Amino acid sequence: MTEYEEILYAVEDGVATITLHRPDRLNAFTARMAKELADAFDAADGDDGVRVVIVTGAGRAFCAGADLGRGAGTFDHGEAVDEARASFGEIDGVPRDGGGTVSLRIAAARKPVIGAINGAAVGVGVTMTLPMDIRIAAESARFGFVFARRGIVPEAASSWFLPRVVGISQAMEWVATGRVFGAAEARAGGLVSRVVPDAELLPAARAIAREIADNTSGVSVAVARQLMWGMLGSPTPWEAHRLDSKAMYELGAGGDAAEGVTAFLEKRQAKFPLRVSRDYPAALPPWPRP
Amino acid sequence: MTEYEEILYAVEDGVATITLHRPDRLNAFTARMAKELADAFDAADGDDGVRVVIVTGAGRAFCAGADLGRGAGTFDHGEAVDEARASFGEIDGVPRDGGGTVSLRIAAARKPVIGAINGAAVGVGVTMTLPMDIRIAAESARFGFVFARRGIVPEAASSWFLPRVVGISQAMEWVATGRVFGAAEARAGGLVSRVVPDAELLPAARAIAREIADNTSGVSVAVARQLMWGMLGSPTPWEAHRLDSKAMYELGAGGDAAEGVTAFLEKRQAKFPLRVSRDYPAALPPWPRP
Amino acid sequence: MTEYEEILYAVEDGVATITLHRPDRLNAFTARMAKELADAFDAADGDDGVRVVIVTGAGRAFCAGADLGRGAGTFDHGEAVDEARASFGEIDGVPRDGGGTVSLRIAAARKPVIGAINGAAVGVGVTMTLPMDIRIAAESARFGFVFARRGIVPEAASSWFLPRVVGISQAMEWVATGRVFGAAEARAGGLVSRVVPDAELLPAARAIAREIADNTSGVSVAVARQLMWGMLGSPTPWEAHRLDSKAMYELGAGGDAAEGVTAFLEKRQAKFPLRVSRDYPAALPPWPRP
Repeated sequence: MTEYEEILYAVEDGVATITLHRPDRLNAFTARMAKELADAFDAADGDDGVRVVIVTGAGRAFCAGADLGRGAGTFDHGEAVDEARASFGEIDGVPRDGGGTVSLRIAAARKPVIGAINGAAVGVGVTMTLPMDIRIAAESARFGFVFARRGIVPEAASSWFLPRVVGISQAMEWVATGRVFGAAEARAGGLVSRVVPDAELLPAARAIAREIADNTSGVSVAVARQLMWGMLGSPTPWEAHRLDSKAMYELGAGGDAAEGVTAFLEKRQAKFPLRVSRDYPAALPPWPRP
Repeated sequence: MTEYEEILYAVEDGVATITLHRPDRLNAFTARMAKELADAFDAADGDDGVRVVIVTGAGRAFCAGADLGRGAGTFDHGEAVDEARASFGEIDGVPRDGGGTVSLRIAAARKPVIGAINGAAVGVGVTMTLPMDIRIAAESARFGFVFARRGIVPEAASSWFLPRVVGISQAMEWVATGRVFGAAEARAGGLVSRVVPDAELLPAARAIAREIADNTSGVSVAVARQLMWGMLGSPTPWEAHRLDSKAMYELGAGGDAAEGVTAFLEKRQAKFPLRVSRDYPAALPPWPRP
Repeated sequence: MTEYEEILYAVEDGVATITLHRPDRLNAFTARMAKELADAFDAADGDDGVRVVIVTGAGRAFCAGADLGRGAGTFDHGEAVDEARASFGEIDGVPRDGGGTVSLRIAAARKPVIGAINGAAVGVGVTMTLPMDIRIAAESARFGFVFARRGIVPEAASSWFLPRVVGISQAMEWVATGRVFGAAEARAGGLVSRVVPDAELLPAARAIAREIADNTSGVSVAVARQLMWGMLGSPTPWEAHRLDSKAMYELGAGGDAAEGVTAFLEKRQAKFPLRVSRDYPAALPPWPRP
């Protein structure tokens, strides 16, 4: 993709910042935004200069959910079926849910993803954050799994992600009521790990990003992310044992392990030589695709 | 079932209240109570006038566990094998656990279920609440996964439900010690989401029920409940993506989505036309049966 | 194993205490320590006089992680491949991860396991505690999933255990940053259930052990532990229902159930006659082996 219209993408000091950017529409979600997000994650994954991805919103919201510009027909893909199919393809004969294409892309990322949530994060605006690794919120943030109030259902594979992030009981309370709630309730319920004043949101996200980028091996983090999310679906720890035996065998003999241990013993910061694009262990299966 | 002896069942303003009703026995659990509970959930699921189910106990307890009236032989289905088999049928050649028949029926409910826990909730009295979506407690509530103190095991499929509700470590601590604990510990450990003075227990449960009944689509909530609980068992988010694509396609073109979006844009309360009994999406698989 | 060199093993009043014992090396993990731990868990499981296992560290640390005495080559099993294979065997053609052999052995234990964590618990020093049932910490405890800072990956099947203990978001934050954190953060994040002054660590662990040993049936606890950990991998509650129907049928007719109910009705402490070595229900499948 040569140019983005609905997001901004900027890389600085090893951190890619993706900004949802339709501020006049509270960054409401569109098919174009979904495609631009997927493309931006491809760019971040393919760029060894990117160690961490931050996602945030421009202006006074993170993302107010689906753009309701089509009114009553907003979610009717009977009216818009060719557009929906053209946008996202089909699954089992129906158009793929657009939010799901984004959340599954984020789940497959090789770089850790930090959600820096400002203002409203409602509908797909919050479900798209669930496959991110860390979510922090500004005091102004407001959340809502409002689907049942619109006559639709939680999408973006949130029925899989949300109970794994906050537990089934909290998930059901938020989904069954559809209520909008503030940052404090999000923190208490485990949806975000920290609440900071609005002006400190991006600095706080960048500080976490720096902690990762300055101290860790990119290949180690990429493999760890794959293992952690992947093993959520494994019935026993034996598959984890098999995979981490392979990963330890391959990475243990690699340059990052030698440098990591040496730097620790010399009490200096490590300079890891491996690169995700080139050195990701061949023995590990990719994140499951349909 | 024409008449209940051990529970009360009442519907008012879209909310069904099921009251365990053997107050002279602290609502101790019996085979008859199990069958009446299953029947009451059938009634609530089949009645489009019911949007939410509340379960509570009559008198000073929620449910004190199995009725120990048979003393040392209480759990011996060798003595009572025909009665047990007659009550619940068999699974793999043994009588099905009676608590499990209740918890699996609650897990399959199409309406959200709120446990309003007063006084003792011990043994099956607490395990039966685990498949409920929301649990709140009176200050007088006391809980106990006391099975190991009685020489039996956690039943009602609680080995599946409890770690998903409170995490494996909290689950194991309560189960291995078998200790009885109060409402504050239940709140701290994530077993209940709120503790209120005893006199406010039912009003608090009804307020949550109202928040659901007044603002949401019954079909949306039924589908969301199915997806959330069902996807706990899915190894990857791809199955969730497949199912919510189907659900979004079908419900997005339906009357509730049109009304939900229109009402939101008009800043008024929605009046959803769909009915669970008639309009539940055919594309969604039922909750798994044995 | 006739004699331990790197751990201590002592049984008193029904409680086995395993002490990691290389205090001059902060109890750093070695292949020998792994084998001694596995052997000690075999001993505890086989001894009906042992009801609970406590694991702690000698001196000022719990376990500082892998012994880095080999420097840059510490994790290189190309250099040390025969030793690694000789120590732990192979899986899929590579040496099995040593930490995983310990954590999988602990996961399979028939006795509940309490981690009493003093000082540093870093790398395999913390991942080995994840399959324990209860973790409590001294105020001096410090934790770190430091793998990405050493150029390796979270091992000991921690990609399976950690998200099930603390949730995926907290797991990813600790793993992606690799930061070392104190007891308060461990408590807030759900890694330990209690923090106590250093001098009270072992007394607190022993008090929990006593609560279990004095009040519960060993067979009940063994079966409950198996069911709880095992059902984490079951896609639906139906398998739990099948297994607990079998367990209830067998144990309900057994001596511990008769004694447990009788003692409760007589308001006295139960004396359970069954023994794990002899009376563990034949109908229950063993914890999954590779």
